[in-house]
Amino acid sequence: DRVEDIIPEGHIAHYDLNKLHSTSEAALNKEQVLILTPMQTFHQQYWDNLLQLTYPRELLNLGFIVPRTQSGDVALAKLEEAVKKVQTDKKNQRFAKITILRQDTKSFDKLMEKERHALEVQKERRAAMALARNELLFSTIGPHTSWVLWLDADIVETPSSLIQDMTAHNKPVLAANVYQRYFDEEKKESAIRAYDFNNWAESDTGLELAAQMADDEIIVEGYSELATYRPLMAHYYDANGSPSAEMALDGVGGGCTLVQADVHRDGAMFPSFPFYHLIETEGFAKMAKRLNYEVYGLPNYLVYHIEEWND
Amino acid sequence: DRVEDIIPEGHIAHYDLNKLHSTSEAALNKEQVLILTPMQTFHQQYWDNLLQLTYPRELLNLGFIVPRTQSGDVALAKLEEAVKKVQTDKKNQRFAKITILRQDTKSFDKLMEKERHALEVQKERRAAMALARNELLFSTIGPHTSWVLWLDADIVETPSSLIQDMTAHNKPVLAANVYQRYFDEEKKESAIRAYDFNNWAESDTGLELAAQMADDEIIVEGYSELATYRPLMAHYYDANGSPSAEMALDGVGGGCTLVQADVHRDGAMFPSFPFYHLIETEGFAKMAKRLNYEVYGLPNYLVYHIEEWND
Ligand SMILES: Nc1nc2c(ncn2[C@@H]2O[C@H](COP(=O)(O)OP(=O)(O)O)[C@@H](O)[C@H]2O)c(=O)[nH]1
Ligand SMILES: Nc1nc2c(ncn2[C@@H]2O[C@H](COP(=O)(O)OP(=O)(O)O)[C@@H](O)[C@H]2O)c(=O)[nH]1
Ligand SMILES: [Mn+2]
Ligand SMILES: [Mn+2]
Repeated sequence: DRVEDIIPEGHIAHYDLNKLHSTSEAALNKEQVLILTPMQTFHQQYWDNLLQLTYPRELLNLGFIVPRTQSGDVALAKLEEAVKKVQTDKKNQRFAKITILRQDTKSFDKLMEKERHALEVQKERRAAMALARNELLFSTIGPHTSWVLWLDADIVETPSSLIQDMTAHNKPVLAANVYQRYFDEEKKESAIRAYDFNNWAESDTGLELAAQMADDEIIVEGYSELATYRPLMAHYYDANGSPSAEMALDGVGGGCTLVQADVHRDGAMFPSFPFYHLIETEGFAKMAKRLNYEVYGLPNYLVYHIEEWND
Repeated sequence: DRVEDIIPEGHIAHYDLNKLHSTSEAALNKEQVLILTPMQTFHQQYWDNLLQLTYPRELLNLGFIVPRTQSGDVALAKLEEAVKKVQTDKKNQRFAKITILRQDTKSFDKLMEKERHALEVQKERRAAMALARNELLFSTIGPHTSWVLWLDADIVETPSSLIQDMTAHNKPVLAANVYQRYFDEEKKESAIRAYDFNNWAESDTGLELAAQMADDEIIVEGYSELATYRPLMAHYYDANGSPSAEMALDGVGGGCTLVQADVHRDGAMFPSFPFYHLIETEGFAKMAKRLNYEVYGLPNYLVYHIEEWND
């Protein structure tokens, strides 16, 4: 037989989704993890942090989606260089697969120019982000994927055991607590502060607000215009508490959130339209709950967002 | 370089989603079509019909999801035999790729045993079907997919130019009219009748019904318990009309429905929970509309469902 007469690999593919597991011993069970990152800016610190993760690389698939903007062009060039380096380096240090997508739907540069109320702009940004996340998810998740780790491109510091630590909880959806290092000018020392307010539990006030809203209005957390009094995970960090403490959530951010692949495969995506008055990652959490999955966060497990003025 | 030192194909993959098109000249533009079929029973007529489609096979990907039931076991064995035959036959007659999934979520055999009101059973069936369709979709759609054709396993007769005909309309979502051939015992001749009532346009009565419903209630079309007075595409067939006549729809079935891949990539999936009081394929149509896509049907373009007592 000549090579082209043999059925190419993948020409017929069989998968038993029932035998695909997401367990608390992911690495031991050789579970494939897909790390997904929407990327407007390439930060070297993000990449260095990614490279120091100790989860076996042959079980890691990476997926990126880069916007069609000038900043996207720059990010893409840097990302491609970084990717090429690691994927042509020692074979046992390569990732199983890396997919880079150029975004089809509209990106933010345009939106940023608009002189509009910040909350209004936020709605459009979040809707556009939802589309980008869906494009990325639908294009990269495969029948072999056990876990999806949503990791934003500006998350620059995580424990190296991030994936082992988070999969060990074996939760359908699990968000790390996104903090930020900064220099406290008064105390003249470096300090940390809460960054991501999208990880929250529902409150009575939040529910009442939603009930009074018009069908197509949305709540985005973290705006004083809409005080929801929702318990925000960012405020539950306890430096002396156990890093494995769990907290039930109703909304999550996309900064560093682990998802059992079955949750996505059952249909949980990022709504770009109001879904129970929520969109994007917060709408995703609600959708996961409508699919009967539990959503949790790790208040004492910190990962760090870049300081914007510092890069 | 030894083979294993070269970056394996697909190790780094680049796709510009903006350069991926779904156009009215799909075959000419070499657009990849993914045919997705949830399959409880393997009908030889379905397979024969599939094989007579004239869209270039090297642009066709097939995806099947088979339930974990006894009937699923039988279907799987027959499907595998059929697939093996075509994929090992002449190279230029092979499909680009065929993926067979064994379903993870619950299947119907169990549900059928329940002594429950038919409409209630239908809700559970439809919810389970939604999960099966999502598992199949998320596992097979890739960054190269231009079109997704949902084709049920009991659709046994379509024009051989089905894909060319339907893509030519270049609509985000487009449903063919599913009819059924049967033997008219009175007239002693073979005849046709409407089969699928899930292709419909919204009505005032339908909207009023929905408005009065509890949040988690659903409307499934085609039950006299819930008269919606919705215009059903099945009733708009005109034997003398143009086969390319279009009709705007709000709900679709999954029998033979073509979708631009971008619609799915933007997040449109099959809700297994009530979405505007709709689920599964009908909920999908609503979701496509929430994503600002138009939904159409072809009332005079007939495809045929198997006659159940006849197989
Ligand atoms: N693909 C894509 N990614 C984007 C776009 N805008 C921002 N991002 C990325 O999406 C993630 C979250 O965006 P960011 O602006 O940091 O949001 P914030 O930190 O929540 O205010 C980051 O990884 C960004 O690099 C965009 O238009 N397209
Ligand atoms: N994967 C899967 N497919 C199924 C299941 N039940 C039915 N199907 C398939 O789904 C499609 C629609 O189901 P069917 O019972 O024909 O629905 P109807 O014709 O609309 O009443 C057909 O292709 C069936 O073979 C199931 O439990 N799992
Ligand atoms: Mn950020
Ligand atoms: Mn059927």
